[in-house]
Amino acid sequence: MTHSRIEKDTLGVVRVPINKYWGAQTERSRKNFKIGPEASMPIEIIHAFGFLKKAAAHVNFEFGFLSKKKKDMISLVCDEIINEKLNDQFPLVIWQTGSGTHTNMNINEVISNRAHVLMGKELGKFQPLIHPNDDVNMSQSSNDTFSTAMHIAAYQKLVKKTIPSIQELKKNFEKKSKFFQNIIKIGRTHLMDATPITLGQEFSGYVSQIDHGLNVIEKTLDHLSELAIGGTAVGTGLNTPKGYDKKITEYICELTGFPFKVAKNKFEAISSHDAIVESHSAIKQIAVSLIKISNDIRFLSSGPRSGIGEIYIPENEPGSSMMPGKVNPTQCEAIIMVCTQIIGNDMSISMAGSSGNYELNVSKPLMAYNFLQSAQLLADACVSFSSFCVMGIQPNYKRIKEFLDKSLMLVTALNTHIGYEKSAEIAKFAYKNNTTLKEEAIRLGYLTIEEFEKFVNPSKMV
Amino acid sequence: MTHSRIEKDTLGVVRVPINKYWGAQTERSRKNFKIGPEASMPIEIIHAFGFLKKAAAHVNFEFGFLSKKKKDMISLVCDEIINEKLNDQFPLVIWQTGSGTHTNMNINEVISNRAHVLMGKELGKFQPLIHPNDDVNMSQSSNDTFSTAMHIAAYQKLVKKTIPSIQELKKNFEKKSKFFQNIIKIGRTHLMDATPITLGQEFSGYVSQIDHGLNVIEKTLDHLSELAIGGTAVGTGLNTPKGYDKKITEYICELTGFPFKVAKNKFEAISSHDAIVESHSAIKQIAVSLIKISNDIRFLSSGPRSGIGEIYIPENEPGSSMMPGKVNPTQCEAIIMVCTQIIGNDMSISMAGSSGNYELNVSKPLMAYNFLQSAQLLADACVSFSSFCVMGIQPNYKRIKEFLDKSLMLVTALNTHIGYEKSAEIAKFAYKNNTTLKEEAIRLGYLTIEEFEKFVNPSKMV
Amino acid sequence: MTHSRIEKDTLGVVRVPINKYWGAQTERSRKNFKIGPEASMPIEIIHAFGFLKKAAAHVNFEFGFLSKKKKDMISLVCDEIINEKLNDQFPLVIWQTGSGTHTNMNINEVISNRAHVLMGKELGKFQPLIHPNDDVNMSQSSNDTFSTAMHIAAYQKLVKKTIPSIQELKKNFEKKSKFFQNIIKIGRTHLMDATPITLGQEFSGYVSQIDHGLNVIEKTLDHLSELAIGGTAVGTGLNTPKGYDKKITEYICELTGFPFKVAKNKFEAISSHDAIVESHSAIKQIAVSLIKISNDIRFLSSGPRSGIGEIYIPENEPGSSMMPGKVNPTQCEAIIMVCTQIIGNDMSISMAGSSGNYELNVSKPLMAYNFLQSAQLLADACVSFSSFCVMGIQPNYKRIKEFLDKSLMLVTALNTHIGYEKSAEIAKFAYKNNTTLKEEAIRLGYLTIEEFEKFVNPSKMV
Amino acid sequence: MTHSRIEKDTLGVVRVPINKYWGAQTERSRKNFKIGPEASMPIEIIHAFGFLKKAAAHVNFEFGFLSKKKKDMISLVCDEIINEKLNDQFPLVIWQTGSGTHTNMNINEVISNRAHVLMGKELGKFQPLIHPNDDVNMSQSSNDTFSTAMHIAAYQKLVKKTIPSIQELKKNFEKKSKFFQNIIKIGRTHLMDATPITLGQEFSGYVSQIDHGLNVIEKTLDHLSELAIGGTAVGTGLNTPKGYDKKITEYICELTGFPFKVAKNKFEAISSHDAIVESHSAIKQIAVSLIKISNDIRFLSSGPRSGIGEIYIPENEPGSSMMPGKVNPTQCEAIIMVCTQIIGNDMSISMAGSSGNYELNVSKPLMAYNFLQSAQLLADACVSFSSFCVMGIQPNYKRIKEFLDKSLMLVTALNTHIGYEKSAEIAKFAYKNNTTLKEEAIRLGYLTIEEFEKFVNPSKMV
Repeated sequence: MTHSRIEKDTLGVVRVPINKYWGAQTERSRKNFKIGPEASMPIEIIHAFGFLKKAAAHVNFEFGFLSKKKKDMISLVCDEIINEKLNDQFPLVIWQTGSGTHTNMNINEVISNRAHVLMGKELGKFQPLIHPNDDVNMSQSSNDTFSTAMHIAAYQKLVKKTIPSIQELKKNFEKKSKFFQNIIKIGRTHLMDATPITLGQEFSGYVSQIDHGLNVIEKTLDHLSELAIGGTAVGTGLNTPKGYDKKITEYICELTGFPFKVAKNKFEAISSHDAIVESHSAIKQIAVSLIKISNDIRFLSSGPRSGIGEIYIPENEPGSSMMPGKVNPTQCEAIIMVCTQIIGNDMSISMAGSSGNYELNVSKPLMAYNFLQSAQLLADACVSFSSFCVMGIQPNYKRIKEFLDKSLMLVTALNTHIGYEKSAEIAKFAYKNNTTLKEEAIRLGYLTIEEFEKFVNPSKMV
Repeated sequence: MTHSRIEKDTLGVVRVPINKYWGAQTERSRKNFKIGPEASMPIEIIHAFGFLKKAAAHVNFEFGFLSKKKKDMISLVCDEIINEKLNDQFPLVIWQTGSGTHTNMNINEVISNRAHVLMGKELGKFQPLIHPNDDVNMSQSSNDTFSTAMHIAAYQKLVKKTIPSIQELKKNFEKKSKFFQNIIKIGRTHLMDATPITLGQEFSGYVSQIDHGLNVIEKTLDHLSELAIGGTAVGTGLNTPKGYDKKITEYICELTGFPFKVAKNKFEAISSHDAIVESHSAIKQIAVSLIKISNDIRFLSSGPRSGIGEIYIPENEPGSSMMPGKVNPTQCEAIIMVCTQIIGNDMSISMAGSSGNYELNVSKPLMAYNFLQSAQLLADACVSFSSFCVMGIQPNYKRIKEFLDKSLMLVTALNTHIGYEKSAEIAKFAYKNNTTLKEEAIRLGYLTIEEFEKFVNPSKMV
Repeated sequence: MTHSRIEKDTLGVVRVPINKYWGAQTERSRKNFKIGPEASMPIEIIHAFGFLKKAAAHVNFEFGFLSKKKKDMISLVCDEIINEKLNDQFPLVIWQTGSGTHTNMNINEVISNRAHVLMGKELGKFQPLIHPNDDVNMSQSSNDTFSTAMHIAAYQKLVKKTIPSIQELKKNFEKKSKFFQNIIKIGRTHLMDATPITLGQEFSGYVSQIDHGLNVIEKTLDHLSELAIGGTAVGTGLNTPKGYDKKITEYICELTGFPFKVAKNKFEAISSHDAIVESHSAIKQIAVSLIKISNDIRFLSSGPRSGIGEIYIPENEPGSSMMPGKVNPTQCEAIIMVCTQIIGNDMSISMAGSSGNYELNVSKPLMAYNFLQSAQLLADACVSFSSFCVMGIQPNYKRIKEFLDKSLMLVTALNTHIGYEKSAEIAKFAYKNNTTLKEEAIRLGYLTIEEFEKFVNPSKMV
Repeated sequence: MTHSRIEKDTLGVVRVPINKYWGAQTERSRKNFKIGPEASMPIEIIHAFGFLKKAAAHVNFEFGFLSKKKKDMISLVCDEIINEKLNDQFPLVIWQTGSGTHTNMNINEVISNRAHVLMGKELGKFQPLIHPNDDVNMSQSSNDTFSTAMHIAAYQKLVKKTIPSIQELKKNFEKKSKFFQNIIKIGRTHLMDATPITLGQEFSGYVSQIDHGLNVIEKTLDHLSELAIGGTAVGTGLNTPKGYDKKITEYICELTGFPFKVAKNKFEAISSHDAIVESHSAIKQIAVSLIKISNDIRFLSSGPRSGIGEIYIPENEPGSSMMPGKVNPTQCEAIIMVCTQIIGNDMSISMAGSSGNYELNVSKPLMAYNFLQSAQLLADACVSFSSFCVMGIQPNYKRIKEFLDKSLMLVTALNTHIGYEKSAEIAKFAYKNNTTLKEEAIRLGYLTIEEFEKFVNPSKMV
C-alpha cells in the first residue's frame, strides 16, 4: 500500500489508506473480515452512533471528565456523521465480531482523526488530541454502545419509515373499502364459490389486518425504547459516574427527538436482544398479513379472460418480453417477495436472539442488519404497492355480476326456511343439470317463485 | 365392519362403528384422512366447541329459533363434552379439511346422536330429534365456529397454563437473583473473561427477559379475545339474527369466565389468523429468551472439574448409562428442545397464517395444533425447569472466588486512572508472564501498591 | 403409590408402578419430565432399540463377554419389543435429557426386568440376572445407541413408508399426465393468461418435481446408513473390543434387512446429526414441491362456477356445515398443511443440528421426533392425496376449450412473423374492444385471414 | 429530468437518463419499484445473462433467423457485460416482478442501445438496428432466460467460490487433526466431563462433517446443471426452432466451461425452482455443521483464565474498546452469524420455492438473491475463518493435561472390571471428598494400586 500511513493500537502498527480517517483497529477488521461486499454494516447504525457519541461527549463534559475543547470537537465530527458527510469512512462489514466492537472503534477512530484534521493537523502526524478509547469511548463499551445504536436505529426506522408507510397503505385500502361498499360479489371459501359478500367488506378485512399489525408494532416500541447505554461492558456500568445513564439517555432523546429511556435491566439489554426479536416479530406479522392480502389482489385481478378478473389493477409495465400485450400483477409479486424475505429474516433473528452467552449476545450486527433490512423493505414495498397498485384498483362490475348471478351458494339463504338437506338437494341438481337454483327449487316443489325471490336476495345476504 | 350401523349425509350412506356417536361426515373424514395417529385434533379444540355449541343453543333458544327441549338436550351433551366424558368420540386428525369443517361436523353429529340416546332412543334407529346442521349448527358455519374454538382454546391455554407457569419460573429466578445479590463473580463477554458482575445481577437479567416476555404475551391477549362467531361462512353473518354475535359472545364469556369480545372485523377473523400469529410470536420470544437462559445455566454448572462450575444444579438422575457418577443438566436440555420446537412451530404458523385466500384461511387445524403444542410444552417445561433445576441452584463459592481473583479484566478499573493503553500493557504482561495485574502494574511503575489496591476492587466494580 | 415396588439405581431407591417392567431411572425421568403427553418418545425409536440391543447381545456373546443364557434372554425380550408386545412399557417423553439416555435406560431396565419375569421370577424380588448397565448396555453408551436408533428408525421409515408412498403419488400423476397429453389448454404465468400448454405437460411438471425429490431422498440414504454404534460415550469406542463396531453393524443389517454400515467417523456421528439434517432437507424439498402442486390442483379445480374449473376433483365429503352442496379440495388442504408442518420441522431440526457441543449433540430426541413425524405424515398424506384426489382428477373439456378459444396470448405465435410490437397492438385492441385476435389482426391489416389461421394454431403451439 | 432522452415501449414513451443504455421498460421498473437500495439485483445474474444472450445470438444466427451483423454486435456487447464493463447499466432491484422480466428487458435494452452506439449512432437518435425483443430476446422469454441465468449464476458460484473455500477450510482442519492426533484430552458430553479423546479425534469429527457436507453440495450440482432455456414462456418452447434447446445449452457450456444440460422437464424448470431449493439445503447443512464446529472452537479457546482454554486461537484484533488486553474469538462469531443468516435464507427460499402457480414461479429474484448471498458469504467466511483462526490454532498442553489428570470420568474404564455400580461409587466419593479416583478405589478396596494403574490409562482409552 503505497498511499498509506501508519496507525497503531495495542497490538502494534498497521498501514491504513492515507486519505481515510479510520485507524489501526478498523483496518485490522477490514483485512480480517473480507466477507461479502465492503461497508455492509448498515449506515443507520453509523448515524445512530453519531448521536450516541455526541451525547456521551456532552455528558462526560458535564461530569467534568472531558474538556470543553474535546467535547466540542467530538460534537462537530458527530454532526458530520449524522449529516452523512462521512459515509465513506465506515468500510466494515456486518460479518465481523459479534459485539460490533470493530464498528464502535471505527467510529471512535474516525472521530479522533477527523477532529485532528479539523484542528488543522495532518493525518498520521502527531498524536491526536482526542484519544479513540480514552476520550471518544469514555464511559462506554462496545457492548452497551452497539446495543444502544441498534435500538436508536431500529426505533427511528420504524417510527420514521415503516409505520408511516404501512399507515399510508392502510389508508388507501380504507378508501377502496368505502368506495366498494355496495358492490355485492360472490364470496369464496376453500377457493370455492360461497355466499355473497361486498367487495368493500372483503377489503375491510385487509384494513383490519393491517390495523391490528400496526397496533402490534406500536406496542413493541416501548421495549425498543430501552437503551443499554451506561451499562458499559457487562451491564454494571463500570467506569461511569453515577447518574450517567439517565443523563446520556436524556441527551439522546433531545438529539433524536424520540422518547428513549434507560433500560430497566442493563444486563438483559446487553446479553440478549429480545426487544429486537419482539419488534421484528411484529414486522413479521404484518408480512404474514400482506402476503395474504396481495395474493388476494393478484388472484382477484387474474385474467384477463381466463382468471377471476373481478378487479382491474393498473398496467404499469409491459408484462412479458415474449407475450405481447401481457400485463402482470408485478407490485403484488414484489411485496410478496419482500414479505417472504422478512419471514426468513425473522428466523435468523430468532436464532441469533437465542444465541447469547453469559453477559453478551454476539450476533448483534446480524440482528441489526436483518431488522433494518426488513423494516426498510417493508416500508418501501408498502409505498410502492400502495401507489402503483392499490390506489388504482377498479372493480370489473360486469364480471362481478356474472359470477354473482350464477352462484349456487345463494342457496344457503334457504337453510333457515327449508333446512340444510333440501337446500343441498337444490344446489346439487342445479349444478348437475347446469340450471339455476330457482328452476330447481320450483321443480322440486320446495318453494314458490315468490318465496324463492323473497328468500334468495343477495343484497340481503351481505 | 360387522359392528356398524348406517348413517347418512347429503352425499349418501356410510357405515359407522355401532357404538360411536359420530355420524356419516365424521366417518367419511376418518376414512379419507388416515394421516398420522388417529384423534390428533387437539382435545382443547373439542372442549372449546363444547362451550360454543352450548352458547349457540342458548342464544338460538332466546331468539325463538330453537325449542327449549332441543336447547336443553344440546346443553346437556355440551356439558359432557366440556367435562371430558366424550373424549373418545372425536377420532379425527389435524390433517383434514383446512377449515376444520370435519371436526365441527363431528361435534354436531355427536351432540345429535348422544342427545338421541340420552332421550332413550337407540343409535341409528329413528331420525334424531336434533339435526346436526339445522339445530346444533344453527346460525353457525364451520368457518366462524372453528376460528372461534381456536381462540377460546388458545386464550384459555395461555391464561390458565402458560402464563402462570412462566410466572412461576420468573418468581424462582427472582428469588435466586436476590439470594445471589452479593456474590461477586467474573463476567464473561464473547465467552472470554470480562469485568466483574454479581451472580444476582446475572440472574436479574434472566428475570428481566422473562418479565418482558410475559408482558408481550399479555399484550397479545386482546387480539386473541376477539371471536369470529356470528360471521358464519364468510364474515357477513348470513343466517344469523341481528345481535346474535354479541349475545353468543356474552354467553361464551359467562361459560368460560374469560373476557372475549366480538371480533372488530369478522372478515379478517375468518380469512386470516393474525391473532394466532401474534400470540405465537410472543411465545416464540419467550422461547428465544429461555434458550439463552438455560444455556447459561448449563454452561455455568458445567464440570464438575473441567468446566466452568460456578454453580451447582440438582442431581436428579444418573447421567450416563456408561459413565458412572455422571450428572447432566437434563432440565436445561429438555427446555432447550422445547424452545427449539417452538421456533420451528412459529415458522409453520407464520407460513400457514400467510396462506389464506379470499374469505377463508384453510390452515386452521395446523395453526391450532402448533399453537396449543407450543403453549402446553412451554408451560410444562417451565414448571419442570423451575422445580427440578432453578429452585435447586447453589453457588460454588470456592470456584467463583478463584476465577475472580485471577481475572485479568479487573484491569479495566484502571482505564480512568492511567488510560486504556497502559492498562492494556499491564494485562498483556500479566497474561504473558502468568503473573498478577498488581505485580505488573508495579513492575511497570504505573501505580503504587496503594493506588492499585484502591482502584482495583471488585466489590466496587459491580 | 400403593401399587408400587422399590427399584434402585446409583442415586438411591425409587418407587415404581408394581406391574411395569421399568426401573428406577425410567421412573425418575417420568417424574422429572412431565412435559407434554406421556410416552411421546416415538415408538419407532423403541423398536429400533429392540434390534440394537439384540445385536449387541449377540456380539457380546460372540466375544465371550456375555453368557449364552443372558444373550438368549436379552434376545427374547428384544423380539417382544420388536413385535410390539411391550409398547406400554415405554412411558417417557421426547422432552427428557437430550442424549436420550433415559430412553436407553428405559429399554435396558425393561429388558432386565422382563427377562427376570420370563425366567419365572417375581418383579422386585431378587436381583435380576441381567443387569441393565453391565449386561444389556454392555459395550454401549446412550450416546452411540440413541444415535444409532435414530438412524435405524429414520432409514426404515423412509425406505418402508415415505419413499413408496411418494412413488405411488408420482405414478398416479404420471398416469394422469399421459392421459391428458393431448388436452390443449391455456397456460398461465403470473396467474395471467399465457401461451397454450397441454394438461399433460402441466402434470408432467409435477411428475418431474416429485421425481427429482425422490432422487434427492434416495441420495441421502447413504449418510443415513452410517451407524454410530461402537463409538460408545464420545466416539472412541472405549469399553468395546476390537472389531465390535463392524460385527454389531452386520447383525443390525441382518436383523433389519437394511444395508447399514459403520460410521466413517464416530466422533461426528455422535456429536452432530448432519445425516438427519440432510435427509430431512430432502423431505422438506418434496414438501416444497407438493405445496406448489396441490395448490395448482385446488386452483385448477376451483369453482364450480366462479373459479378456474378446468379440472374436476372427487367429491369426498360435504364441504360445508352451512353452505349446502358445497364441495372443497380437502385433500389438497390436508397435504398443504402437512407440508407446512414439515417446513417448520426442518427449522427445528436445523437449529437442533447446529446446537451440538464438543462430543455430543443433546437435541437427539427432538430431532428424532420431528424427523419421524415429517416422514410419516408425508407418507400418509401422499397416499391420501393420491387415492382420494389425484386418481380421480378429470378434465372439464368444455371449460378448457372456452378459455383456450378466447385467449389473447395466442398472439405470441405472431411474434416471429410480424414482430413483438405489432403483435402487442393486436392483443391490446382485442382486449380493449372485447373482440378476437383474428378480427383485430385483419382490421389492422397486419395479416390476412389465411395467414392468421395458419400462424395461430394452438395445437402447434404446445 | 433535464438530462434525459425519450424511449418507448408498447405502453408508450418514457424519459430515461441521457447517458444510460437502458430503455423504457427498465426505466418503468426503476420508477415503479423503489424498494431497498438501487441495483440490488445480483450482478452475477447480469453476467450470467451475458453468456446466455451471446449463446442465443449464435444459435439464432445458425438457424438463419438472425443476421451475422446482429449476431456479432450482440456478442460484442455480451462480452462487455461478461467482462464487467457495463455493471453500471443495471439499476434494477430484486423486488421487481417475480419473473425477473424487468431485468431480462434491462439486458435486452442495454444490448440494443449499446450496440447502436458501438455502431457509431447516437443514443435516442434513429431506431436501433437491434430490437430488444425481436432480436436480443429472439427465441426466448423472461421465464426461461431468468430461470437459466439463476442456474448459471448459482452453479458458477458454487463451483468457483463456495466449494473451493469449503475445501480449503476442510484441508486446514485435516492438518490440525493430524497434528493433534496424540494429544489426549478430556471429552465432554452434555458439557460435562466425560471419557478421554484426542484433540485430533475431536477435530476429525469436524473434518467429517465438512466432508459429508461437501459431498451433499456436489450431489446437488446435477439438478442445478439443468437449464430451462428453450422452454420460452411456459415450457413448451413456443417460437423456438427444433433443436434450439440443445444447441444453446451447448453454447452456454462452451462459453462458461461448465457441463450444463437441457432440463429434463422444462415445465418444472420454469414453474418451480426445486434445484435451487435442493442446492441451498446443502448449503444450509454446511451452515448447521459450521455453527457446531465454530462454537466448539470458541468454547475450547475461552478464557484466558476462567474458561476452558484448551486451545489458543490467534489474536487478530484488540477485543474490547473498554477492557484492555482482551482478545475475542471474532472469526468464530463472524462465521456463526453468516451461518445463522443462511438458515434464515433457507426459510425464505423454501417458502418462495413452494409459492409457484401453474406455469410460473414468481419469486425468482428473491431466490436468486438469497442463494447467491448464502453461497458468497459462506465462501468468504470459510476462507476468513480458515486463514485467521483455524490455521493458527495451538493446543494449550498444560491446561489439557490438568483437566485430564483430574477427570473423574476415567472411572469408566473400570466398568468392565468391577461393574457400573462400584465404578459409580468410586466417582461419587472422589467428587464428594475432592480426592482422586485412585485414592477412593483403593480406600473402598475395589482395586489394588497396580490394578488401578493398569486399567485406568488415558492413553489406552482413546
